[in-house]
Amino acid sequence: MTSQNCAHCAGLNEHRLWEGERQRIVLVHDTGFEGWCRVIWNDHVSELTDLSGEDRQAVISAVIALEEALRAELQPWKINIAALGTGAPHLHFHVVPRFRDDPTFPDPVWLASQRQSDRVLPEGFADRMAQRLSLALGASAV
Amino acid sequence: MTSQNCAHCAGLNEHRLWEGERQRIVLVHDTGFEGWCRVIWNDHVSELTDLSGEDRQAVISAVIALEEALRAELQPWKINIAALGTGAPHLHFHVVPRFRDDPTFPDPVWLASQRQSDRVLPEGFADRMAQRLSLALGASAV
Repeated sequence: MTSQNCAHCAGLNEHRLWEGERQRIVLVHDTGFEGWCRVIWNDHVSELTDLSGEDRQAVISAVIALEEALRAELQPWKINIAALGTGAPHLHFHVVPRFRDDPTFPDPVWLASQRQSDRVLPEGFADRMAQRLSLALGASAV
Repeated sequence: MTSQNCAHCAGLNEHRLWEGERQRIVLVHDTGFEGWCRVIWNDHVSELTDLSGEDRQAVISAVIALEEALRAELQPWKINIAALGTGAPHLHFHVVPRFRDDPTFPDPVWLASQRQSDRVLPEGFADRMAQRLSLALGASAV
């Protein structure tokens, strides 16, 4: 089930860390927030409660695996979890590691940038994230 | 386990819709977004993955019950779910019903208001929400 003009249906130019039959996990670049990831449900579904109980559990398991992997790799000050999509109602969860020197700390990432962060991801980050996610969620189709 | 100077530990002046042994659900007023609710974990814990598997499941069940109740009562355009707490690291999930006439639609609720909404909650909303949450999560201690 896909919708025209929906970026999450198209799924172009994504840096996929893990991919299952129903959902995928991507690393987002060029946000100013290093390590920002998303869990994206493949079908064009609006809300978590539009899914079956089993599918809801799959999404939550992916969010939790992602949070655990980001904490293990980056030791962030805080993890932010958010499923918004008000203007693009295709179910996805942002999972964002927050640091005291990130552009909007301690405000939400959607507010105006207060500073430029020099933070860069450690070498091999994406590969290790992919390994951790496959260990937690099963082998990836990526 | 509580922390001094933490509003979610103090829990003062909350409009509680449901209360369990480990967490509570509150209706937030005076935000400009009618129906904004929070699931608040009682202990001063920072992250979802700081909890045991059983406790994580309890939080997620509360978020899902809250989403279902808000959708049934208000038929929002979209539900937003967010666990941020970057400046106040005490685990809580915002569950916010979004409408096309709300102050920041389609942007996140944390951005500057673009309009004043005349929306008011239907009469008996809080009582019906409390009933729905008790049905879904078990009798409330409120």
